[in-house]
Amino acid sequence: MTAVLEGKLADRDAWTADRCSIAKALDVLGTRSSFLLMREAFYGGRRFDDLARRAGITEASAAARLKELTEHGLLERRPYQEPGQRTRHEYVLTEKGRDLLPVALALMAWGDKHLTGSRGAPLALRHRTCGSGVAVEVRCAEGHPVPLEELGVRVAQPRR
Amino acid sequence: MTAVLEGKLADRDAWTADRCSIAKALDVLGTRSSFLLMREAFYGGRRFDDLARRAGITEASAAARLKELTEHGLLERRPYQEPGQRTRHEYVLTEKGRDLLPVALALMAWGDKHLTGSRGAPLALRHRTCGSGVAVEVRCAEGHPVPLEELGVRVAQPRR
Repeated sequence: MTAVLEGKLADRDAWTADRCSIAKALDVLGTRSSFLLMREAFYGGRRFDDLARRAGITEASAAARLKELTEHGLLERRPYQEPGQRTRHEYVLTEKGRDLLPVALALMAWGDKHLTGSRGAPLALRHRTCGSGVAVEVRCAEGHPVPLEELGVRVAQPRR
Repeated sequence: MTAVLEGKLADRDAWTADRCSIAKALDVLGTRSSFLLMREAFYGGRRFDDLARRAGITEASAAARLKELTEHGLLERRPYQEPGQRTRHEYVLTEKGRDLLPVALALMAWGDKHLTGSRGAPLALRHRTCGSGVAVEVRCAEGHPVPLEELGVRVAQPRR
């Protein structure tokens, strides 16, 4: 069972996903290194050395990926200065960067379920306000969980 | 504001994410092409030519990526035969592959919001059972939406 293509999309041979938002997102997040740097930004990392070390990538790679992530507006580069040191820059999540949280947590949940073997998930997530566990869910506006076979995909109405 | 590292994780210098499920997931889904093939499988694609064409990638790339996705267990390769033709193979989503739906929809939602410009989202998703719109949400077991700054991350209890 798969999603159901509705309306004009039903004829699969008549269209391809030229304006696909998934493809556009992958163009921005194209590399594993980029995503691991975003993970570290979610965990509170801001400084170059810390981000590069914790993402487990070379400094050259970290510099290139942080430049791209800044240009794409996922991180903002801000100057800071410690006493007696030259000015450095740190990388702060923007709203656009923060909005990747569901992607990161959905990848984590999938990896936890399918790739960790008998050891299980290494990390647990909780809602700090109430203490209960956190999950990423596909739901409709009525609150029903939506499995793939109940998902309908159609052409959106253009914005006015 | 970022997620809050709790317990043993609070000392950022004392650990790195060596067993990270996000990194493991990215190792499997490493390439843009792999993910676009999974998108097409979600849309009902099964046959090699159709998957390659609609993912917009070369046949050589499609063959390599489909082999990887099959080896990783996201797709299952099944023989089929049309009258008078030789046996061919089609690619069918496994449970492991289907479980990527939240990742795909989270990427789509992020691209829709941040990368489509004034044209807006090209596709609309609806729950076929009730007709209402579909979204990917980060929620706790109590049903609260969980923004990044209310997310606590700690070491999971090992499985018994």
